[in-house]
Amino acid sequence: MANSSLITNEKITIGIIGMGRIGNVHYKNLLRMPNVEIAYICDIIANDEWPAKYSQAEKIVTDYHIVLNDDRVQAVLLCVPTDLHPQMTMDAAKAGKDIFCEKPVGFDDAEILKALKTVKEAGVKFQVGFNRRFDKNFRRIVDYRNQGNVGEEQILKITSRDPEPPSMDYVRRSGGIFMDMTIHDFDIARFITGEEVDSVFVAGGVMIDPKIGEAGDIDTALTTLFFKNGMIGSIDNSRKAVYGYDQRIELFGSKGMAHADNVLDSTTSYSGADSVSSDKPMLFFLQRYMDAYFTELTSFFEAVQGQHEIECTFEDGIRAIRLAQAAKKSLETGQQVKVQDI
Amino acid sequence: MANSSLITNEKITIGIIGMGRIGNVHYKNLLRMPNVEIAYICDIIANDEWPAKYSQAEKIVTDYHIVLNDDRVQAVLLCVPTDLHPQMTMDAAKAGKDIFCEKPVGFDDAEILKALKTVKEAGVKFQVGFNRRFDKNFRRIVDYRNQGNVGEEQILKITSRDPEPPSMDYVRRSGGIFMDMTIHDFDIARFITGEEVDSVFVAGGVMIDPKIGEAGDIDTALTTLFFKNGMIGSIDNSRKAVYGYDQRIELFGSKGMAHADNVLDSTTSYSGADSVSSDKPMLFFLQRYMDAYFTELTSFFEAVQGQHEIECTFEDGIRAIRLAQAAKKSLETGQQVKVQDI
Amino acid sequence: MANSSLITNEKITIGIIGMGRIGNVHYKNLLRMPNVEIAYICDIIANDEWPAKYSQAEKIVTDYHIVLNDDRVQAVLLCVPTDLHPQMTMDAAKAGKDIFCEKPVGFDDAEILKALKTVKEAGVKFQVGFNRRFDKNFRRIVDYRNQGNVGEEQILKITSRDPEPPSMDYVRRSGGIFMDMTIHDFDIARFITGEEVDSVFVAGGVMIDPKIGEAGDIDTALTTLFFKNGMIGSIDNSRKAVYGYDQRIELFGSKGMAHADNVLDSTTSYSGADSVSSDKPMLFFLQRYMDAYFTELTSFFEAVQGQHEIECTFEDGIRAIRLAQAAKKSLETGQQVKVQDI
Amino acid sequence: MANSSLITNEKITIGIIGMGRIGNVHYKNLLRMPNVEIAYICDIIANDEWPAKYSQAEKIVTDYHIVLNDDRVQAVLLCVPTDLHPQMTMDAAKAGKDIFCEKPVGFDDAEILKALKTVKEAGVKFQVGFNRRFDKNFRRIVDYRNQGNVGEEQILKITSRDPEPPSMDYVRRSGGIFMDMTIHDFDIARFITGEEVDSVFVAGGVMIDPKIGEAGDIDTALTTLFFKNGMIGSIDNSRKAVYGYDQRIELFGSKGMAHADNVLDSTTSYSGADSVSSDKPMLFFLQRYMDAYFTELTSFFEAVQGQHEIECTFEDGIRAIRLAQAAKKSLETGQQVKVQDI
Repeated sequence: MANSSLITNEKITIGIIGMGRIGNVHYKNLLRMPNVEIAYICDIIANDEWPAKYSQAEKIVTDYHIVLNDDRVQAVLLCVPTDLHPQMTMDAAKAGKDIFCEKPVGFDDAEILKALKTVKEAGVKFQVGFNRRFDKNFRRIVDYRNQGNVGEEQILKITSRDPEPPSMDYVRRSGGIFMDMTIHDFDIARFITGEEVDSVFVAGGVMIDPKIGEAGDIDTALTTLFFKNGMIGSIDNSRKAVYGYDQRIELFGSKGMAHADNVLDSTTSYSGADSVSSDKPMLFFLQRYMDAYFTELTSFFEAVQGQHEIECTFEDGIRAIRLAQAAKKSLETGQQVKVQDI
Repeated sequence: MANSSLITNEKITIGIIGMGRIGNVHYKNLLRMPNVEIAYICDIIANDEWPAKYSQAEKIVTDYHIVLNDDRVQAVLLCVPTDLHPQMTMDAAKAGKDIFCEKPVGFDDAEILKALKTVKEAGVKFQVGFNRRFDKNFRRIVDYRNQGNVGEEQILKITSRDPEPPSMDYVRRSGGIFMDMTIHDFDIARFITGEEVDSVFVAGGVMIDPKIGEAGDIDTALTTLFFKNGMIGSIDNSRKAVYGYDQRIELFGSKGMAHADNVLDSTTSYSGADSVSSDKPMLFFLQRYMDAYFTELTSFFEAVQGQHEIECTFEDGIRAIRLAQAAKKSLETGQQVKVQDI
Repeated sequence: MANSSLITNEKITIGIIGMGRIGNVHYKNLLRMPNVEIAYICDIIANDEWPAKYSQAEKIVTDYHIVLNDDRVQAVLLCVPTDLHPQMTMDAAKAGKDIFCEKPVGFDDAEILKALKTVKEAGVKFQVGFNRRFDKNFRRIVDYRNQGNVGEEQILKITSRDPEPPSMDYVRRSGGIFMDMTIHDFDIARFITGEEVDSVFVAGGVMIDPKIGEAGDIDTALTTLFFKNGMIGSIDNSRKAVYGYDQRIELFGSKGMAHADNVLDSTTSYSGADSVSSDKPMLFFLQRYMDAYFTELTSFFEAVQGQHEIECTFEDGIRAIRLAQAAKKSLETGQQVKVQDI
Repeated sequence: MANSSLITNEKITIGIIGMGRIGNVHYKNLLRMPNVEIAYICDIIANDEWPAKYSQAEKIVTDYHIVLNDDRVQAVLLCVPTDLHPQMTMDAAKAGKDIFCEKPVGFDDAEILKALKTVKEAGVKFQVGFNRRFDKNFRRIVDYRNQGNVGEEQILKITSRDPEPPSMDYVRRSGGIFMDMTIHDFDIARFITGEEVDSVFVAGGVMIDPKIGEAGDIDTALTTLFFKNGMIGSIDNSRKAVYGYDQRIELFGSKGMAHADNVLDSTTSYSGADSVSSDKPMLFFLQRYMDAYFTELTSFFEAVQGQHEIECTFEDGIRAIRLAQAAKKSLETGQQVKVQDI
């Protein structure tokens, strides 16, 4: 895995395109990477206050073509809305830039495949932003698997619950729970097991907010995974866990079980007259996965510099979408549904 | 729940029929109940050494009719093989004895329903031996639910893994994993949630021992539960967890989650140069549920004495079988299967 | 250690002298030992209701000499007030009975030593009731030490806090916190480490109830132990931990640390909007050490039958008193105080 | 407490004097603070490679007077060897700079008091670098205390063990275990309780490496704290815990106990055939307290900007030294020793 102490002194010059929530997360982490020069910050709503706000960026622009046209820029971070991912990916690839693209890689299958083709032809590097792969607790499960401690894998269990549902506005644009939320779990299921999923079966419903149902989505789901190697798995999702962001994974096999538990706000407990109480799990992804966001970028830059292969590829991004598509279909049909290939 | 300190001084006179493993468990626990007189121990293989071996029993007999014909006997514990349960239940009911019957209540549906009818007509009390209902950790989940801490129930998760598969001989006679092993989980699912299951979907396979497959059974299963109230659940079973008997339950709802963790051999950990290690979960059911076996009998005797209702009824016993039957059918058909009524 | 399954079928006939709280604990545990015959229960306040109350006892008597004069009685359990221990010990020894005596072995040094001499001369077996030595969690620390996992012992830490102070009446008769409460910790310190304490230093005070101070006692203490082998230790005591009986031990050495944590009422936790809460430690010694009380008697009976040596000797009982005496003197003088030999 | 989101946009211009290990820790953290300009890095061994190595620093100098003479510099971080602290503090104070000074504030009492006087006269701000005060787990204990959950404080327990002893060279220059290592615990004892220590009693010895003894120091210590408000406490130190950096604190009072446990390398456990194992505590202070180092600087800069008072004052620095001095004397005399005032 990426080890920050291994970063060479060689500079990398980059541009960030899209400065919403996740763009800002990456900007903040980039400040801790002395060898990365932020040549551009690009957002269509950038204004005169941005140079002060993003003082470490050399230039603030509103047109992403300016970023792509600058030869100094080696890599771009695409943090724009999902429907823009394929086009910008193609433009960046044609401009010879290495690409870090937020998840999902797109909404439209044809566009996504076209972008994949362009990336391959251009020979640029492409990493999709499945940050959880870089969580040290989940990596530890993979360590145990790689060291043979799990043995033959038999059961995978993922608990993935958000502390609260997003805005209804977001829900409507999100592509549905499987494409927006479970997609992370689909990717991590492949990452943790190192295996491909053959088919899925979904049980789910609207248990939290009827408005989510009215918008054509569900808020609670239990997805059964049938892997190609015969093992089975389950993912349980809820849009609302009142006790915080619940992110646990368990991999069970012939030689043992590795289990990643939640990360709590502190290790401090209080023993009182009524109970022994601990802090809750970290609030949400910006807290729980802050280090993972840092590490995924570090890994990307190391890959750009040729230190290792891309750790989360375009194909990984598409396979997670295929799983989300199969899950949606299973929910609609009540049947076990085969996962399509890329 | 049964509280042993509430047992009245009034004596109860009983007989145990069947002295296999579970009969012996009950015998041992009965020694700790000063108000229970063991008038009979009955087993077809009893011999001259048994009076010394079971010194607290007044009489050792091989014919269970002797037990039923003794007017002093108020209640019997049926610990014989499953296929004998219905007939003995009917005989005991007709003799006016209250009945504690091991699970499952029978194999043959027609016989079971006939036994149920006889019990109802005779007006005797009948408790089925789903011991896990009396585990204090699982009861604590029900406490949280009853106190309103869970809110509206949304997701139930049960992990139930044995430390090692039974003998192949046992596997062949067991009625299959759902009737033999998961049946406990089906019952506890109803107990923990207080809700009925509408249908089930099963993913499963042979991952531990091909011989189990050759015997027409599976050894690993992931069962999705669709409850009548809309909530969903999952049970994951394995016949072999190398780290011991893995028995965890989690109930998640709109106001919070209650989670019963494993009981370890000790609370002592060791921090060494390589890791921090704790003891494993208690080996198997005789260790983990020893107190529950004691409590279920206490509860039965209290019910016999009229202190409260039977806590695990004949109908509970049948509903668990209906769930096992539906699960088996789901595995065979690959479809979601409706659970039949009694 | 004692393993209940190893008990031979050979009967042991005993008498219990003194039926206060601890006498009743032992009586209840004896009911689970099929090979033990309770020939006598003896208490000066026994009355006509006792035969029904203690139905497993053959005879109820008020004069302990009757017990000692019965040749069938092999062993006696002395559960009378501490000041009676030495005299009864001598009487029982002279009558050739093996003796299980509650802690402490006495209050008066001269009497204690006389009793020790009598026991030695009579050649009877004598076990003192330091029940914590039989707690499976603490035994696990000793396992780690014996297996070499701790290495050279360096630091011992004992936390021992009661859930609530005893009655003022009890406080006045108790002999003071060191003789009544810390004496258990002094014994377990020797048991856990396998080493002798050379001197002690005490910090303590009245923090819970001024009345305890008025009675000439303290309710909170921090005792430093200087062991003969150079290692150091600390015991912290409080008469009132609102969260329950706090009983933890930690042994730290050159190769690692073994740590026995509290035993909670259940393994079930609740994650709610405010915190993640677990059950409190088991209420008090009757809950936490119930199994240990059973095991200490089992061990005693095994020793009586010659299966192994006495696991907690008369000398152990005296050494714990010597530690309590040194602690008291340290509190009074503010100095480090040498622990006297037997 | 410092909350990084509250940092104003106002710039702070600083210089770092001394670039040993801790100077580098601070440099790395400063990179994440966009409003801090590092005008100078100063070290007597700086050379031509340093501008590339410390690219975010405007200037690299070897003479600290240059830093102090630059009017743009508002604050300095003193990360030089301890014996230089008082003189540089005085020079910086006279130059009107706010000062962040590493612990301890000095070795020589007269110099320290002179520096304190100078700082007061100059009216500059001064923070001493007791980083543990900013650990979120320890802060959580203070939260519980402030919220009244602990009630009247009665017992404080601190476990503080290093993973391995420093080099013998370092041991000789360190001022001894109390001045070098326990000084952190003395400060945190005052911080956690909000109370002053009246006297101390020390038990300690050489258990790890005889060479440490030959150098006139010890490597294992158990310090009893007598607080002015009557409460008691203990600190146990070891220079070598094979399982990693052991940093736990427990505050016990009339209403409950708050306990900060270790921070492990991950939340992932492995259940195998032999045991359930977790990761060890984070290796050492650079891992465990990395966030605390960040937060202490943030807090300092906020104080410089007048957002709140200095959270760890010069007087705090001196009081910790007084405790170390008393501890040393107690070890030498075997007596309880009064802690001197500033």
